[in-house]
Amino acid sequence: MPPTGSASSDFDAATAVTRTEGGGLLAELDPGWDVGGGILNGGYLLAVAARAAVLDGPHPHPVALSASYLRATAPGPATLTVVPGPAGRTLAHSTVALVTDAGPTLQVQATTATLGADDAPEWSSPVPDVPAPDECLNAAPGASLGGHPVPAIGLRHRVETRMDPATAGWALGRPSGEPVMRAWVRLADGREPDPFALVLFADVLPPTIWGMGLFGWAPTVQLQVLVRALPAPGWCLLESRASEVAGGWIDEDYRIWDSTGRLVAQSRQLARAPKPR
Amino acid sequence: MPPTGSASSDFDAATAVTRTEGGGLLAELDPGWDVGGGILNGGYLLAVAARAAVLDGPHPHPVALSASYLRATAPGPATLTVVPGPAGRTLAHSTVALVTDAGPTLQVQATTATLGADDAPEWSSPVPDVPAPDECLNAAPGASLGGHPVPAIGLRHRVETRMDPATAGWALGRPSGEPVMRAWVRLADGREPDPFALVLFADVLPPTIWGMGLFGWAPTVQLQVLVRALPAPGWCLLESRASEVAGGWIDEDYRIWDSTGRLVAQSRQLARAPKPR
Repeated sequence: MPPTGSASSDFDAATAVTRTEGGGLLAELDPGWDVGGGILNGGYLLAVAARAAVLDGPHPHPVALSASYLRATAPGPATLTVVPGPAGRTLAHSTVALVTDAGPTLQVQATTATLGADDAPEWSSPVPDVPAPDECLNAAPGASLGGHPVPAIGLRHRVETRMDPATAGWALGRPSGEPVMRAWVRLADGREPDPFALVLFADVLPPTIWGMGLFGWAPTVQLQVLVRALPAPGWCLLESRASEVAGGWIDEDYRIWDSTGRLVAQSRQLARAPKPR
Repeated sequence: MPPTGSASSDFDAATAVTRTEGGGLLAELDPGWDVGGGILNGGYLLAVAARAAVLDGPHPHPVALSASYLRATAPGPATLTVVPGPAGRTLAHSTVALVTDAGPTLQVQATTATLGADDAPEWSSPVPDVPAPDECLNAAPGASLGGHPVPAIGLRHRVETRMDPATAGWALGRPSGEPVMRAWVRLADGREPDPFALVLFADVLPPTIWGMGLFGWAPTVQLQVLVRALPAPGWCLLESRASEVAGGWIDEDYRIWDSTGRLVAQSRQLARAPKPR
């Protein structure tokens, strides 16, 4: 059986889920989507789980995914197990487990549905005022951001990231003091956004605590992503924001708008916070 | 084995989880915590699941719970199944399933930890400006709110609810047009708040779309609750807010502050939205 997605897109190839002759589901977790230290990005892993959730389900789109990150996940082969739950005309529930050589690494509650192409919102959040992508800071690996080279983690090669200068003071040695980030993003392979790309984008920015000058890794504990609409082609605008940093814990909220200014996804995660130095 | 919690609290008794001689976990879902139509409140059910998650785990507090609501849940006996995941000094993961006569109704990703009593926040969200509880509208069952009696659903008997007049225009026949609600709440049994009560509170207000004049039931599809700190005694202040209403879907975000103004919990849910009339 051919893998899901299009072979011409790096993202589709890296998130493909295939069925074995024995009926199991396999993915080959791609080392190119790391966040440093050989650890894969949480949004990338959740997109792989989302592909598994829709593979045999009645609906094509992930609309709600809640994942526990059981341990850091390294590249390599992974098996996926989908346990279907109640399914109907409006939505379907399932549970997805991702298991690597190291054991189970991701456990996901998945809800899928069929998003409409023209569901105009009755209420929506306004898009923040951010300079156009060309006027933002290009966080390409190796590029100089305020005199500091952007780390060459795989994720920044795969997702073009243009940071809003107003929330990128940390890159210039002048952290704003606020745990907020805004950026335009798009897939570097030229593929237009869809619900699976939105799942990836929902955990793609640097940790918001960098805005407070606290540099370090903030490993995700639980992440919930809601996909609210089919995104229009073009750049997506992301805003991530922490509400509280305390006791070694941080939350991060993402909102994602498409190129037309429509709110198309939201996420919230609980993560461990690096300690102040 | 005695049930968890204190027998002198209605909330503790109604959320108690007991172990049978055979080793299984049982709860008796209490008809007093309904939201109408013999359907139990989602926060109440999640609090029961949270009790199961901590029962044999190494940590006493639920810090992240993500639940899929598979079907509406009626009162009566329920069994709970806890599958432990990785556990360490900082946190422990597990999966909790709640099953009634109607089949599985709730599937939960649970993360537990040990919250500190004095983890002062390094960053936090300011508490909104709301009149004191005595100056808010008492949404007690049978009370008159703008000439309309408050429906006698069980939940409003169990949780004292004082609505901020600024977001209660819908009760007076003048919906604000904004899907926002604010209220002070506390358990009617006099028990002080703790992480389990915060889980209940995270889904305790009327649907935010009532603020838009769209009256109807908004059944929860997925709900994530984060408990950020041990709450101080007294009233908790809740603010719920929808970011988008579209295509028959609505999100609801809760923030919960304790009586000292500390942000102690957050939640987000995806729900089905009643259609405009």
